[in-house]
Amino acid sequence: MKKVAVIGIGHVGSTVAYTLVSRRVCDELVLLDENEALAIAEMHDLKTGQVGHGGDVTITANDESQLSDCDLIIFSAGDISILQHSSDRFAELAYTKQVAAQWGPKIKAANFKGILLSITNPCDVITQYLQKLTGLPQARVLGTGTTLDTARMQNAVADALQIAPNAVTGYVLGEHGNSQFVAWSSVQVASQALTKQFTPEQLAQFETDARQGAWAVISGKGYTSFGIANQAAICANAILQNTHEILPVSNYDQQAGCYLGHPAMVGSDGILKDYQLQLTASETELMTTSIKKIKDMYATI
Amino acid sequence: MKKVAVIGIGHVGSTVAYTLVSRRVCDELVLLDENEALAIAEMHDLKTGQVGHGGDVTITANDESQLSDCDLIIFSAGDISILQHSSDRFAELAYTKQVAAQWGPKIKAANFKGILLSITNPCDVITQYLQKLTGLPQARVLGTGTTLDTARMQNAVADALQIAPNAVTGYVLGEHGNSQFVAWSSVQVASQALTKQFTPEQLAQFETDARQGAWAVISGKGYTSFGIANQAAICANAILQNTHEILPVSNYDQQAGCYLGHPAMVGSDGILKDYQLQLTASETELMTTSIKKIKDMYATI
Amino acid sequence: MKKVAVIGIGHVGSTVAYTLVSRRVCDELVLLDENEALAIAEMHDLKTGQVGHGGDVTITANDESQLSDCDLIIFSAGDISILQHSSDRFAELAYTKQVAAQWGPKIKAANFKGILLSITNPCDVITQYLQKLTGLPQARVLGTGTTLDTARMQNAVADALQIAPNAVTGYVLGEHGNSQFVAWSSVQVASQALTKQFTPEQLAQFETDARQGAWAVISGKGYTSFGIANQAAICANAILQNTHEILPVSNYDQQAGCYLGHPAMVGSDGILKDYQLQLTASETELMTTSIKKIKDMYATI
Amino acid sequence: MKKVAVIGIGHVGSTVAYTLVSRRVCDELVLLDENEALAIAEMHDLKTGQVGHGGDVTITANDESQLSDCDLIIFSAGDISILQHSSDRFAELAYTKQVAAQWGPKIKAANFKGILLSITNPCDVITQYLQKLTGLPQARVLGTGTTLDTARMQNAVADALQIAPNAVTGYVLGEHGNSQFVAWSSVQVASQALTKQFTPEQLAQFETDARQGAWAVISGKGYTSFGIANQAAICANAILQNTHEILPVSNYDQQAGCYLGHPAMVGSDGILKDYQLQLTASETELMTTSIKKIKDMYATI
Repeated sequence: MKKVAVIGIGHVGSTVAYTLVSRRVCDELVLLDENEALAIAEMHDLKTGQVGHGGDVTITANDESQLSDCDLIIFSAGDISILQHSSDRFAELAYTKQVAAQWGPKIKAANFKGILLSITNPCDVITQYLQKLTGLPQARVLGTGTTLDTARMQNAVADALQIAPNAVTGYVLGEHGNSQFVAWSSVQVASQALTKQFTPEQLAQFETDARQGAWAVISGKGYTSFGIANQAAICANAILQNTHEILPVSNYDQQAGCYLGHPAMVGSDGILKDYQLQLTASETELMTTSIKKIKDMYATI
Repeated sequence: MKKVAVIGIGHVGSTVAYTLVSRRVCDELVLLDENEALAIAEMHDLKTGQVGHGGDVTITANDESQLSDCDLIIFSAGDISILQHSSDRFAELAYTKQVAAQWGPKIKAANFKGILLSITNPCDVITQYLQKLTGLPQARVLGTGTTLDTARMQNAVADALQIAPNAVTGYVLGEHGNSQFVAWSSVQVASQALTKQFTPEQLAQFETDARQGAWAVISGKGYTSFGIANQAAICANAILQNTHEILPVSNYDQQAGCYLGHPAMVGSDGILKDYQLQLTASETELMTTSIKKIKDMYATI
Repeated sequence: MKKVAVIGIGHVGSTVAYTLVSRRVCDELVLLDENEALAIAEMHDLKTGQVGHGGDVTITANDESQLSDCDLIIFSAGDISILQHSSDRFAELAYTKQVAAQWGPKIKAANFKGILLSITNPCDVITQYLQKLTGLPQARVLGTGTTLDTARMQNAVADALQIAPNAVTGYVLGEHGNSQFVAWSSVQVASQALTKQFTPEQLAQFETDARQGAWAVISGKGYTSFGIANQAAICANAILQNTHEILPVSNYDQQAGCYLGHPAMVGSDGILKDYQLQLTASETELMTTSIKKIKDMYATI
Repeated sequence: MKKVAVIGIGHVGSTVAYTLVSRRVCDELVLLDENEALAIAEMHDLKTGQVGHGGDVTITANDESQLSDCDLIIFSAGDISILQHSSDRFAELAYTKQVAAQWGPKIKAANFKGILLSITNPCDVITQYLQKLTGLPQARVLGTGTTLDTARMQNAVADALQIAPNAVTGYVLGEHGNSQFVAWSSVQVASQALTKQFTPEQLAQFETDARQGAWAVISGKGYTSFGIANQAAICANAILQNTHEILPVSNYDQQAGCYLGHPAMVGSDGILKDYQLQLTASETELMTTSIKKIKDMYATI
């Protein structure tokens, strides 16, 4: 049986759980939150939420002893209210590093052997911190990284061309945060580069749409949930079904010396291989800047 | 193309929208809310939430002119904060009748010819009120009724027997509210009546679990979303794909003279046929009480 | 990873494999057939058949060493040409008992610890024979039984009532063959018995439609594939995802002393519990006859 | 309701039908074949094949009057026995042009206004012939083209790299037949060209695997079914759900003056836009050769 634990059952964690159940990505689901009543309430809502449509994922709450034999732990603890008053995910770090420091040792103590997928912001920094705290091999710890930002870029381009977003290939790279950038040299539609179809100003606008996508949502509803839950479920599926898909998750870049959103092959053993894109000079510069920001943030821990 | 409008994009409405998109129940989705920024934010989050998994539902926000050619309108406007301080969905009526009174005439003015599915509490009363306000035929207006309560009953029984909830057949009938009851004479597992397997006390406990299910969730997370979104999506699918499934939706009962949760065949023309169960004497009494409560509530409008 | 082997890649086996891949029921699929070229050809066709729609089940052919760590073996070896010239599945036994005798010891030698699901006709007899040959516990060996016949009965009733077939509950019991019968005392629509809605002649016609369903198909296309593949995939899913669904599979009936189509709870450990329905006197008689036929057939091995 | 007719219910047509039903791509399905008993048998098998898994597509057989209001007609009439004794799909033309000549006028007479998707070989030639026979606009007639060949190329590359086939982007272009070619300039993995990762000899082997893929299957099982059914279902879904996906279907190329496998945006109005790739000199030459072959074949009609 495929067993997943979600740690942190706020808007993101509960929507991730619903998506896993709704798409039948796992067979067993464990909900963990320091607010025990919340985890129990979500367990009830999720159990009801599958009757008549699947209905057969086993869901339990607040039993930390279950961590030991999970195939996957999804870490989604955070405090969205911080981002409601900031424009940089870095602002969450002061709080989230404490939560990571609380759970990391528990995961280690449970002798967990599976894969750890982190969503919590700032994504790359917390993912790296959790790798250190748990002592898991780097290949077995990853973050959702720029998967969400890439989806937002795909949507921006797709809207302009009136095509399906999945018909847009290519990646947003770097920090899941303000220093991220679209690697336009990688972006294609029907195998044709976008740089010939759009002006630099148009591309810049798509990039802004991708980078600012979270705030366009937070400003109206106070948090984001569906976009990130969808990407987390896609990552979880790649891990649990060993799909060998290539996704721009946050994974350790040996050359950069930190976790970083860039394409990697994902399977049941986590990161099976990562890919170094051939970037243009200006893209390389943006990558250097993004790597520096991530490392600077990590240094504050 | 199958086109759906969701009116009221709070926790329930947005989760219904996500479920419709995630299961690809419709081709076009229109989000409407008096809070325009909220509807736009949810539109962005939902658009991102389908990239890489389908990704091809067209989603728009705040354009009421789109109501006219929708196949289905889902009405989910409400104010959950009221239920956080009450133990009866009737408490919502003072507020929700105003929201219904605001939208009903708009739906009528749009010359809407599709099906109207209402979730808003108190469900049976608001469904009936919307039928009156829109002037739509009774067969084309329905509520989620006791579909959710039935799912909760199925879960309670399934947990006790360690079976899949979908293996439990039968219905919760009457008001989607405190006067509802489990028609135990209808409930079976493997074609065997439950009344022979459980004591009256055990059955009473299952019934309490079903009736109190919403509060078990609200007390922990402040609202319910997944359970009701799943049932609304099942109803929407039955309508849009003309499945002729039999569901305990709130539909007009000619004998009772009001809307009421009881099984009906659901398809693209709404309610195709409803079913009168052969109830026991005590169940008939409970039904009478529930009908009276619904009518009394309706009389207060 | 969930690993399934299909033994016998004819029309049924290959369609079962396609259904498993298409619905993503397993992660790894092993195709085995004495015609090696056939198994390899189907592997290629199935691998292509998932690109763009999932596309991530690992498929291999003709490697019997893979049997040892499968979670599920589906046995579907047979020779449909026999049924093109007979009106009783018993006619297949002379051939299929040889095929079972060929594979059973291989499964045993592989030290297989999973669940064995048999489709091959005559279903109940071959299932029992495979249990004996493999030495697996009775609970870990089952056949598709009357799941297909039940689906045909549901369709016959659903067509008459213009409802969804899934809205018809109840079972066809006994032999997956001519001595099967509809347990009308178990059949309901909207929790109401069918015996009050239809005349005995109408019910008899539905029963004939169910029993003769295979020949209605074989006479036109020479074999059946989609109906049985769908049921085998539903059984496989119940096993691999441990759903605890109740299905009328062929499972060992202690009282009868043979394998027999009757409802059982199905999960990752195979048959978790079986259910004895409260039959009418005439149904009990039909059951006795069906048990005798199965035992008589088995005695010929 | 989304209504599809399949003309020609052989191995391909019936598997296409099963895939449409299994993935719930349409709401109504009409099966047409000159062998009436075959179409009726498949109808029965398909109806049974959906009970318990969806189960709500309405399926009818042999009623040509239903063509008039279909949203999509899938043309899959052919005679696979011809390809069992030939290595060029051109060999089928002498037969299939007659079948097209038989159905084209019927489709025209039915005043059909939907989209026509042709699978029958030789695909590009028959698609063009059906467009002429029906008088439908070019944008509303398309063939499965090189979608299947592209999937085979994706599999060949994916096997070599141990990645998911969907992670391979790019196209096979030209004839769905021996003159097809892989446009290696379009093929990427993780946004990196394959031409730098593989030798010309390796690429040539992948290309051979794609081109010969059908015969690898036909030699073992006598026909192909799953691979083509999957692609036809993907095309049908793009049309019926108006997804605006970009697929290498056979569509009319104004410059070439014939139908030809090359990427096009597909939606509810058929071909919404086609894309001319920037080919290398040698690829352009291969394209010229392929166009000439298609035109030469067409000239024989």
